[in-house]
Amino acid sequence: MIIIGERINGMYNDIGKAIKGKDPKPIQEWARRQEEGGADYLDLNVGPASPNKIEAMKWLIEVTQEASDLPLCLDSTNYDAIEEGLKLCKKPAMINSVPAEMPKMERVFPMAVQYGAEVVALAMNEEGIPKDADSRIALAAELVATADSLGFSPEMLYIDPLTLPCNVAQDHGPEVMRTLREIKLISDPSPKTVIGLSNISQGTQNRDLINRTFAVMAMANGLDAGIVDANDNELMSAIATARILLNKDIYCDSFVNVFINRNR
Amino acid sequence: MIIIGERINGMYNDIGKAIKGKDPKPIQEWARRQEEGGADYLDLNVGPASPNKIEAMKWLIEVTQEASDLPLCLDSTNYDAIEEGLKLCKKPAMINSVPAEMPKMERVFPMAVQYGAEVVALAMNEEGIPKDADSRIALAAELVATADSLGFSPEMLYIDPLTLPCNVAQDHGPEVMRTLREIKLISDPSPKTVIGLSNISQGTQNRDLINRTFAVMAMANGLDAGIVDANDNELMSAIATARILLNKDIYCDSFVNVFINRNR
Repeated sequence: MIIIGERINGMYNDIGKAIKGKDPKPIQEWARRQEEGGADYLDLNVGPASPNKIEAMKWLIEVTQEASDLPLCLDSTNYDAIEEGLKLCKKPAMINSVPAEMPKMERVFPMAVQYGAEVVALAMNEEGIPKDADSRIALAAELVATADSLGFSPEMLYIDPLTLPCNVAQDHGPEVMRTLREIKLISDPSPKTVIGLSNISQGTQNRDLINRTFAVMAMANGLDAGIVDANDNELMSAIATARILLNKDIYCDSFVNVFINRNR
Repeated sequence: MIIIGERINGMYNDIGKAIKGKDPKPIQEWARRQEEGGADYLDLNVGPASPNKIEAMKWLIEVTQEASDLPLCLDSTNYDAIEEGLKLCKKPAMINSVPAEMPKMERVFPMAVQYGAEVVALAMNEEGIPKDADSRIALAAELVATADSLGFSPEMLYIDPLTLPCNVAQDHGPEVMRTLREIKLISDPSPKTVIGLSNISQGTQNRDLINRTFAVMAMANGLDAGIVDANDNELMSAIATARILLNKDIYCDSFVNVFINRNR
């Protein structure tokens, strides 16, 4: 699984304060820590409080790139902020995210083509998150078809089937598992899949246990990437183990350490 | 997942010694402990050292039933010992195991019908364990067809796709995942699936981590039962969590305790 570190997000108090006060230290500290934890990408989200999303995103990208060479995942619903951000990224970035809504897809996919960016796409539209796997798969197919018609390759697309907290929408769990498998059948080459892991455990009392269990179950159904806490060692150990069991990394006795340190 | 407690096995020193010395205490202690850990069945295996398999199995069943009301899983390649054992079981038992070899299937399935026992069947034959999913599924289909022709219902059949240690046969992992899913397509009603969990981690340095990761990955692909260490709390917590995420048990904040204590 590709690890997208979730921590540089204005919703966290320390990051929100750092963005507001233009203090690069907490951002750069988390950039380094997530890289050490085993992240492949760093998600950057200015959070809801920033008055000027474009300036905040540009600043966040600049200070993050001073601390880490990892590629970035620009996380915003403000596509102008993402576009200005893409101009600053030193490595091909990821755009997070676009739903299956035509005007947004028409804004995002051509921009992704122009900047060589990957795209996280959500299996939802104006009507919200679907109840079952079939509706999610239909939206995923719409995303793939629209991306393709706009010149964007499905291989660069990461479709998020969208998970809901298991304490309020338990019936979605098996639907998400099936969606992950069947998304792979939409096209050849197939799109990739991604989940924002922490949603599944929102409001529960065993968050870490639920997160890591869901992560490896999703991997067993073909999950390619996750937006996760790269500093949750038990989660990262479980992911490393799932990669061994899926024959994606070669077994050695110290496979957990090898997985975490692979970016160094 | 149905939990079949693995611990009453003559291969363990304390159990081997207890069987040899006709000391019921360690057996009964493990029967109780596994029930407390969350076992649904207790596997009974007299081990390789017992000279008289029939007498040892009969004794093991009797002393176990004095300590626990759980149904038993009679684990032996000596079918006469299993048959004598079945006569003593107070609850319908499980026969563990039969491979896809005609003389053995013709011995086991009619006996299972006679005693109302379930059967663990192995996806292997005289030629050994298959290398890929397709060959495993072919053997599973043979097991289902033969069982059916001998009057034994597929719903009572638990097919083990057979796992090999991930440090020596890593390529089997994904094949086992696919086998678990496709076994469900063989018949309607479909057979159940089971794994002997500890095989996957044999000889590795992270046995518990590998065991619990493999267990929930297999559950995400439809696994119904496992022969496992019911006193591995982290394993049991992971299994409880997977059941929640698959919508098989109803979520509550204390779901782990509810799962473990469900037999009381």
